Amino acid sequence: MKRKRLRDLGVTIGHFRPGRFNAITDVEGVAVGHSTIIKGEGHHIPGKGPVRTGVTAILPGHDVYHNRVVGGAFVLNGAGELAGITQVMEWGLIETPILLTNSLAVGTCSEAAVKYMTEKHPEIGVTEDVVLPLVGECDDSWLNDIAGRHVRQEHVVEALKNATEGSVQEGNVGGGTGMMTCDFKGGIGTSSRKLPQVLGGYTVGVLVMSNFGNMADLRVDGLPIGRMLSKKYSDLHKRGEQNYGSIIAVLATDAPLLAHQLNRLAKRVSLGIGKLGSYAAHGSGEIILAFSTANRVPRKTDKMVYRMKILIDKRMDPLYVAAIEATEEAILNALCMAEPMTGLNGHHAPSLPLDNLKAMFNTWKEMEPARPDLSRHPVYRYRV
Amino acid sequence: MKRKRLRDLGVTIGHFRPGRFNAITDVEGVAVGHSTIIKGEGHHIPGKGPVRTGVTAILPGHDVYHNRVVGGAFVLNGAGELAGITQVMEWGLIETPILLTNSLAVGTCSEAAVKYMTEKHPEIGVTEDVVLPLVGECDDSWLNDIAGRHVRQEHVVEALKNATEGSVQEGNVGGGTGMMTCDFKGGIGTSSRKLPQVLGGYTVGVLVMSNFGNMADLRVDGLPIGRMLSKKYSDLHKRGEQNYGSIIAVLATDAPLLAHQLNRLAKRVSLGIGKLGSYAAHGSGEIILAFSTANRVPRKTDKMVYRMKILIDKRMDPLYVAAIEATEEAILNALCMAEPMTGLNGHHAPSLPLDNLKAMFNTWKEMEPARPDLSRHPVYRYRV
Amino acid sequence: MKRKRLRDLGVTIGHFRPGRFNAITDVEGVAVGHSTIIKGEGHHIPGKGPVRTGVTAILPGHDVYHNRVVGGAFVLNGAGELAGITQVMEWGLIETPILLTNSLAVGTCSEAAVKYMTEKHPEIGVTEDVVLPLVGECDDSWLNDIAGRHVRQEHVVEALKNATEGSVQEGNVGGGTGMMTCDFKGGIGTSSRKLPQVLGGYTVGVLVMSNFGNMADLRVDGLPIGRMLSKKYSDLHKRGEQNYGSIIAVLATDAPLLAHQLNRLAKRVSLGIGKLGSYAAHGSGEIILAFSTANRVPRKTDKMVYRMKILIDKRMDPLYVAAIEATEEAILNALCMAEPMTGLNGHHAPSLPLDNLKAMFNTWKEMEPARPDLSRHPVYRYRV
Amino acid sequence: MKRKRLRDLGVTIGHFRPGRFNAITDVEGVAVGHSTIIKGEGHHIPGKGPVRTGVTAILPGHDVYHNRVVGGAFVLNGAGELAGITQVMEWGLIETPILLTNSLAVGTCSEAAVKYMTEKHPEIGVTEDVVLPLVGECDDSWLNDIAGRHVRQEHVVEALKNATEGSVQEGNVGGGTGMMTCDFKGGIGTSSRKLPQVLGGYTVGVLVMSNFGNMADLRVDGLPIGRMLSKKYSDLHKRGEQNYGSIIAVLATDAPLLAHQLNRLAKRVSLGIGKLGSYAAHGSGEIILAFSTANRVPRKTDKMVYRMKILIDKRMDPLYVAAIEATEEAILNALCMAEPMTGLNGHHAPSLPLDNLKAMFNTWKEMEPARPDLSRHPVYRYRV
Repeated sequence: MKRKRLRDLGVTIGHFRPGRFNAITDVEGVAVGHSTIIKGEGHHIPGKGPVRTGVTAILPGHDVYHNRVVGGAFVLNGAGELAGITQVMEWGLIETPILLTNSLAVGTCSEAAVKYMTEKHPEIGVTEDVVLPLVGECDDSWLNDIAGRHVRQEHVVEALKNATEGSVQEGNVGGGTGMMTCDFKGGIGTSSRKLPQVLGGYTVGVLVMSNFGNMADLRVDGLPIGRMLSKKYSDLHKRGEQNYGSIIAVLATDAPLLAHQLNRLAKRVSLGIGKLGSYAAHGSGEIILAFSTANRVPRKTDKMVYRMKILIDKRMDPLYVAAIEATEEAILNALCMAEPMTGLNGHHAPSLPLDNLKAMFNTWKEMEPARPDLSRHPVYRYRV
Repeated sequence: MKRKRLRDLGVTIGHFRPGRFNAITDVEGVAVGHSTIIKGEGHHIPGKGPVRTGVTAILPGHDVYHNRVVGGAFVLNGAGELAGITQVMEWGLIETPILLTNSLAVGTCSEAAVKYMTEKHPEIGVTEDVVLPLVGECDDSWLNDIAGRHVRQEHVVEALKNATEGSVQEGNVGGGTGMMTCDFKGGIGTSSRKLPQVLGGYTVGVLVMSNFGNMADLRVDGLPIGRMLSKKYSDLHKRGEQNYGSIIAVLATDAPLLAHQLNRLAKRVSLGIGKLGSYAAHGSGEIILAFSTANRVPRKTDKMVYRMKILIDKRMDPLYVAAIEATEEAILNALCMAEPMTGLNGHHAPSLPLDNLKAMFNTWKEMEPARPDLSRHPVYRYRV
Repeated sequence: MKRKRLRDLGVTIGHFRPGRFNAITDVEGVAVGHSTIIKGEGHHIPGKGPVRTGVTAILPGHDVYHNRVVGGAFVLNGAGELAGITQVMEWGLIETPILLTNSLAVGTCSEAAVKYMTEKHPEIGVTEDVVLPLVGECDDSWLNDIAGRHVRQEHVVEALKNATEGSVQEGNVGGGTGMMTCDFKGGIGTSSRKLPQVLGGYTVGVLVMSNFGNMADLRVDGLPIGRMLSKKYSDLHKRGEQNYGSIIAVLATDAPLLAHQLNRLAKRVSLGIGKLGSYAAHGSGEIILAFSTANRVPRKTDKMVYRMKILIDKRMDPLYVAAIEATEEAILNALCMAEPMTGLNGHHAPSLPLDNLKAMFNTWKEMEPARPDLSRHPVYRYRV
Repeated sequence: MKRKRLRDLGVTIGHFRPGRFNAITDVEGVAVGHSTIIKGEGHHIPGKGPVRTGVTAILPGHDVYHNRVVGGAFVLNGAGELAGITQVMEWGLIETPILLTNSLAVGTCSEAAVKYMTEKHPEIGVTEDVVLPLVGECDDSWLNDIAGRHVRQEHVVEALKNATEGSVQEGNVGGGTGMMTCDFKGGIGTSSRKLPQVLGGYTVGVLVMSNFGNMADLRVDGLPIGRMLSKKYSDLHKRGEQNYGSIIAVLATDAPLLAHQLNRLAKRVSLGIGKLGSYAAHGSGEIILAFSTANRVPRKTDKMVYRMKILIDKRMDPLYVAAIEATEEAILNALCMAEPMTGLNGHHAPSLPLDNLKAMFNTWKEMEPARPDLSRHPVYRYRV
């Protein structure tokens, strides 16, 4: 079966509906671009290949340097890196693009982002403060010659320049090129939820670079799909036996949230990761970044005080539900859209078998009674 | 159907096997006691009743005051209180019993615990430092006249004196008496996992005071049981429409863990709570305390340096899996063991319908292929 | 010499000027009340006395239950308790009075505050959520029969009812009655700073219950006054040899700050504590709570979104300086205003010798050149 | 006057004595190396110069990759970056060298460290996990063409290869080359304390890359030296009016501490920074890393459990005092040893005038009575 997004298989996750593109780009102004690097096959020749890696860039709105967005983060397991996270957690602001790449390319991407931004804004480090770019990483060494450091500055620039609004490429692209999920081929995935107007009409979008997990733990809408597929793949040489992997998730919303509210929302993304089947292994970097485009904090201003609109805290619950749902579906979209890949030393990453998945769900649906009328679900109504 | 624990319905959660009692008391030396307060029916008369509340006491080993255990914690959502948590997170030590009660009885329990401990150890606050008791709370005001403050010091003493090793009463007992879970009657639940010897043979036990959630979100081993039951209970006057509730979880293990390792393990309990169906609502106090009995840190010693045995970090993954599994099952045991209850103003909490649950699982099992041989699951083997 | 506040001795701390009362009550709407309990003398009879303790209440504005203030906190060393802090750090809101008392009276104060609030707001725990009162503690067992638990609910009510705006009693009052600082008598102290209009004209007030430190470490405006006084007190039986003590600080401001900005401001209070001479000992509870009265967050509202005014982050530096200065001076005011006290078992706490202090400063001033014109200090001007 | 270390001017900080080199290298096995880059003068030509920057490398012991040290950290203000800190805080382990450089060279240093380590350990990213190098930064753009990115991989290798035990170069070297402190020339400074045998005989060493502060706030042993010097430098074009700067501190000890104990010790370094005169400005990156060499955690082992020796918590206080003292003195050593420097656009950083400093202290000493016998100081004795 041709690769399809989860929803195109007839499987839906959760209560709320996705936005137009079912992508992080449903949050207005957010753009995504990729640079994909695939070279060579067969035996590992350090420094040569095979190469299965890349860079993904997320722009949190137009000219984020001058019009900073409110940001937050949560670290579920910190055996990883999201360079720049310390400043986000201190200031509650994001002022650079967000890059996703392999673990040993963080430095290169950071340097390239600095070069890119100082060329665009020559006042950085002269009359203005320096910037600390945001760069998240996962380890793609199962398929990629990671120590060969094949990501170069031009790839970063390419990903930044490629960034567009609208639908987002998923699977084996950009930073996700060499990534795995639950022993299947993973990579980049995205999804969104748009709340009904009565709950504010806000959009929550999540993009993941998904690279974690064991097959036996994979769940799709809670169903133990991985356990059911384990027999079929019992002879597969699985990465999970040596390397659990990681996940970086980026959440965007147009709900008017403060930094501490975004920290809280980022925490819920980790519940979605858990529902998918992660136990956040010791060696895993499970890091979540979140931002809201609803309020822009200007870099330069003569004002002492500005005004922000803020969502009443009691209204956050639907956003929490949306974040969990979009996270699950984003990871599943990565799994559903990734083509199978053979990389370093012939390591093979099969793609999630969509026909099996669809068949399992059809059987299940026959058993499950009609879904309840969700308009009666308490989350859908505001409790004063 | 008579109330039964989940496993007695033929439903199992996860890969690992429970300990002898499938309870937190499977960790040697841990004891649990309850004091249950049930009085009155019908209309709410503030200060009179109806009363549906109590106190649960967990003793982390014999004479924890002198032989302190290593402790850690994680706050998934902090709209709640676990008095004493600040010191646990600073010192990485637990030196008092742990009490669970309703939200407005934290002060009473803390005072009673101080009285109890100073009578037992008259040197406290004289020649020795003071103690700060650990008291966790959830809000049982749906069924209980909470502002009537019916928990008194004698109830605390009763729970402490009742504490025993071995099997643990579950459901409508102790602090769990008036608690709800996913619009069904909840309360106290517990479960444990014992790792195979090759993974260290350690035991992980979890006890919850479970009081959170919406019916539509309830999952049992991932299956959307709550969604399937929603129609049946569509006319029920549900608490979830006004009050999402909270959960306090206490994890015990005999694995030799340090404080920061216990913080990490506590974080995995939150993944289990999420898998059960929590989105950690804005108003929810989802707080997890964890301790290890493997190393005792003496209060009084002339030594400057002591020695601890410590689990190699890379060996923690099976404990993470065990913590998630035991958490899910502990919450489900609370649901399965709790009898239905009518309380304040006639609010009614039905019990989870075990016959429906069992029937749903039987249908599912027919569909699911045989479970894979778990001895081949990578978590079961140590990856050097 | 009669006890005087530091500034009345001619000693000033820092660059900025205090507000009208040089007290936390310079922040409009903030009120402070005390209940002081002093009974008995001589040998310790557990449960009888001597008693040297009490309760201090801080009201962060009129009807904080309905008009919540934005709050934050920082834990410098967590061997202590500030009940309710978990919720403040989660929500960034304060909705109860703040109580300060001895370590073993936290439960009593919490229970009394619950009683007080539920009587005032009978909807709490019925149609409205429960409340979790804020109660900070230090250990006054050097002078007080702490395990005798002499604080009772009526003392809490007394402190709450006594609370007034305007000047604040300092020294041996309220929660500070039995507290020590650097082996001298300490207790309650307060101070404030009012920024010049060009920096926003904001007020920062700090109130401390100060109970920490060793004499040899005491600094007054940096000068090693404690070291210089050590010889004079070399024969004193000092508490510091057994019990380092703790400090709870509460910061109020009318600057329009968000929760994460208040967390940051609270952190600067810890720098002031350090400058005074604390090393934040292992056994010390050094906990700081901060709130801003500039924005009120209503408990009940039909709105989904509200607007807040917020100080531009780059404008925070003068507030940081003000917080450090007010903290140092608040602790010194506790020391300067506290009368000497003899308590349990004849333990004696001398008061800081003001004549020595004044003489030392006069000598120093002769040496120090004229203070520079502070209007040229960069902190005083805004750097665009 | 020739540049001298503080102690050589007759000024001592605190109670405890320094180790042999009064440097971080007094902790056995710790080595420090620098690479200093100074080129050009006069007007800023972006990409050309003037260049005043470099790299400092700290090796936490022999082959830290295989024999990892226990690590911790604290962020006083997070407007900065210490790449790799997330993993240190998760695992409590350090497994790479620590690099200090300018803000826009973090990426370059990270990439160079990856290259260096993968060449040395070709199994990284092949059969072994990847590594995430530790790279701290401050902004030297007042004197240096920071956006010209003049630090290159060879400088990182040079700093790593130069690393030696024994005395450490201070002032305008390595990462400190272009750094300022309190409007004087700052840079690299180090100091240590060796506890008396009765307190364990442990060594605490601190190395700072010091780049923060306003002149008016500078304190030397508490004395307001900066305020006293302000008049003399009233015409100086000060950086502090535009850029407050940052500080990165690295603490090493041979005391057997766990990760959470090192986090606590790192927090005390921030009190030393505060005593020196920092208010941890909004734009400042004040980040502290700490490690203990007493226990090595092997990367590869077949054991499941290992044993660690651990300092009893109650014995930590002298280490806290030592950390504060060594931090103050390390910063002052940077100030005292740095030669004056003129850099980008003729910006001039005078050096701290040692003759004035010495004269001020001599006057003060005449006034101060003899220091008390410190052997009677309670910190010096262990309180059982």
